[in-house]
Amino acid sequence: MIKSKAAVAWGPGQPLSIEEVDVMPPKAGEVLVRVIASGVCHTDAFTLSGDDPEGNWPAILGHEGGGIVEQVGEGVTSVQVGDHVIPLYTPECGECKFCTSGKTNLCQKIRETQGKGLMPDGTTRFYKDGEPIYHYMGCSTFSEYTVLPEISLAKVNKSAPLEEVCLLGCGVTTGMGAVLNTAKVQKGDTVAIFGLGGIGLSAIIGAAMAGAGRILAIDINEKKFELAKQLGATDCINPKNYDKPIQEVIVELTDGGVDYSFECIGNVDVMRSALECCHKGWGESVIIGVAGAGQEISTRPFQLVTGRVWRGTAFGGVKGRSELPGIVEDYLAGKFKLSDFITHTMPLDDINEAFDLMHEGESIRSVIHFQQEA
Amino acid sequence: MIKSKAAVAWGPGQPLSIEEVDVMPPKAGEVLVRVIASGVCHTDAFTLSGDDPEGNWPAILGHEGGGIVEQVGEGVTSVQVGDHVIPLYTPECGECKFCTSGKTNLCQKIRETQGKGLMPDGTTRFYKDGEPIYHYMGCSTFSEYTVLPEISLAKVNKSAPLEEVCLLGCGVTTGMGAVLNTAKVQKGDTVAIFGLGGIGLSAIIGAAMAGAGRILAIDINEKKFELAKQLGATDCINPKNYDKPIQEVIVELTDGGVDYSFECIGNVDVMRSALECCHKGWGESVIIGVAGAGQEISTRPFQLVTGRVWRGTAFGGVKGRSELPGIVEDYLAGKFKLSDFITHTMPLDDINEAFDLMHEGESIRSVIHFQQEA
Repeated sequence: MIKSKAAVAWGPGQPLSIEEVDVMPPKAGEVLVRVIASGVCHTDAFTLSGDDPEGNWPAILGHEGGGIVEQVGEGVTSVQVGDHVIPLYTPECGECKFCTSGKTNLCQKIRETQGKGLMPDGTTRFYKDGEPIYHYMGCSTFSEYTVLPEISLAKVNKSAPLEEVCLLGCGVTTGMGAVLNTAKVQKGDTVAIFGLGGIGLSAIIGAAMAGAGRILAIDINEKKFELAKQLGATDCINPKNYDKPIQEVIVELTDGGVDYSFECIGNVDVMRSALECCHKGWGESVIIGVAGAGQEISTRPFQLVTGRVWRGTAFGGVKGRSELPGIVEDYLAGKFKLSDFITHTMPLDDINEAFDLMHEGESIRSVIHFQQEA
Repeated sequence: MIKSKAAVAWGPGQPLSIEEVDVMPPKAGEVLVRVIASGVCHTDAFTLSGDDPEGNWPAILGHEGGGIVEQVGEGVTSVQVGDHVIPLYTPECGECKFCTSGKTNLCQKIRETQGKGLMPDGTTRFYKDGEPIYHYMGCSTFSEYTVLPEISLAKVNKSAPLEEVCLLGCGVTTGMGAVLNTAKVQKGDTVAIFGLGGIGLSAIIGAAMAGAGRILAIDINEKKFELAKQLGATDCINPKNYDKPIQEVIVELTDGGVDYSFECIGNVDVMRSALECCHKGWGESVIIGVAGAGQEISTRPFQLVTGRVWRGTAFGGVKGRSELPGIVEDYLAGKFKLSDFITHTMPLDDINEAFDLMHEGESIRSVIHFQQEA
């Protein structure tokens, strides 16, 4: 058992509390990781708000991290002490029906326990004064030390700075992957990206990498437009500047609609707009954002019968262990930059500030540096 | 101008009235067709009910026909007098953005006038006592003679009996095409087909042709099950026999859900079930049925984010002029049968009986034979 400094979420709607917690050693098939850096993502805020039906309390949040293997449990062979790793909230066992299907990255091997905030054996590795604290998304990167299943770790090139590539643990991979893997945007395509947070901006990068001919970036916060343009957006649109539904505006601007659209917010009304701004006959809309519990999307079925397609994506369709290391290599080769996303860094002690900045729309990503002093 | 016997729909909710109408000669780019046979489809009944927002009155309904070219207008080159043709409610101009996209069969060349019940020049060719009667779906096959744009005619092999291949003008092509073209079902796949009318049964044929491993046929009318099994259904399911939502039943029966599902009714609640019975990670649902005006489909976005895909299809994704002749050849080669669908035939005088049989669930397809005596 080791002591670890961690930001504990004692319950929904409360600020995180910096605590010294006890971390149990890794059991068979598990790995103890020393976290070097962790992004703070909207999904952490979503769960903390209490809207996430899968929230368990108390918990250690955080799922966009980068760390170094500190200790391995019995039978672990794919990583060793000292390896640099990115925790995966979507594991890759390589054996389940999903992994072997060749059709999805949604490994279900440990889905049930992960959803309950537990390790695969149904217990937790975190305790405070003898009371258990739940894991979160199988990652819990808001702790100096965390324990993960071996199948939830992508081993990456040691020359990549963990303070940057931690963002590949969620947002950036999700946005880029949605465009490149899920939608498979082609050269010359017209795309619309709704919501210019970390995921939306990453989707713009993906669209630019794919050679999209026109990239429409849509947000009600115009402060996001400068970076969006810098990353490749050709048109920045604020729906508040129009009297009619934004889908009608986009259909007019694009001679019938876009080839692909991406919803990067989690707002069911925007999901409808994103579908309906697609071109009749072939336009496809990809839902990336996570909506609140019980919320539903709607449209007239005519939208689909006339050729539009509605799909979704999780973690950009990327298989973490087999594909994420290659994305890190692409980053190292200069195919895309991550520094643009990191608007703030701070020590774990100041983590609540990261949530404040996010809610105020001031940050793209705040990254917690565990070595940094407050 | 010639005289033609036709079934006129004077207004929504009324029985059709057999009348002698005046048919104007074909203008440039138009063709006069003598109709030999016409299926009576649910879409005709849907429009006649008044639920179709595109209904125009009075009109000559019918869109699933087979006929012989009687006269061609100026500039018509692709068909000549005596050719056997199947009228197309989805034309194929070969020139518009949609036709040249390679991504859709939804030619839009004459969409606007067709939706208004008019020929491309904005006028009608049907009159009764000097008053205009509207066209329907660009076809109006419930008339001994009808006029269509050249781009709305598929020229087919003369050795195919028009009394059977008329069904390829809508239902059978729509159902088979949804499975083979739109979904691209593969050997061994598990599929669910909701609604066992002409389209659903055709979807079963398509699934059997594709080599689907398991074909679940779902209907609340068990009278349809025998033919469904004969055509290839492996499981026939009546949702009324279960206490829980049919999607849950199907997910249990199929170890997680189906690879593809097809909604062949036009019921928005069934569309939801069809989506939600799909397998997490890759299942795709195809909407074929046409819902009533203003009705909407809904689901939780989580259904899509976890890998399901929602799409639709019109006329089975088939490009009428370039692909339908090949489907007629497949029929002639014995790859599928059409006689199974034709439960009733009758002369035009008895057409209201065809609607009654449909509403009573007694018929699969009634086919009007224009030469038959009452």
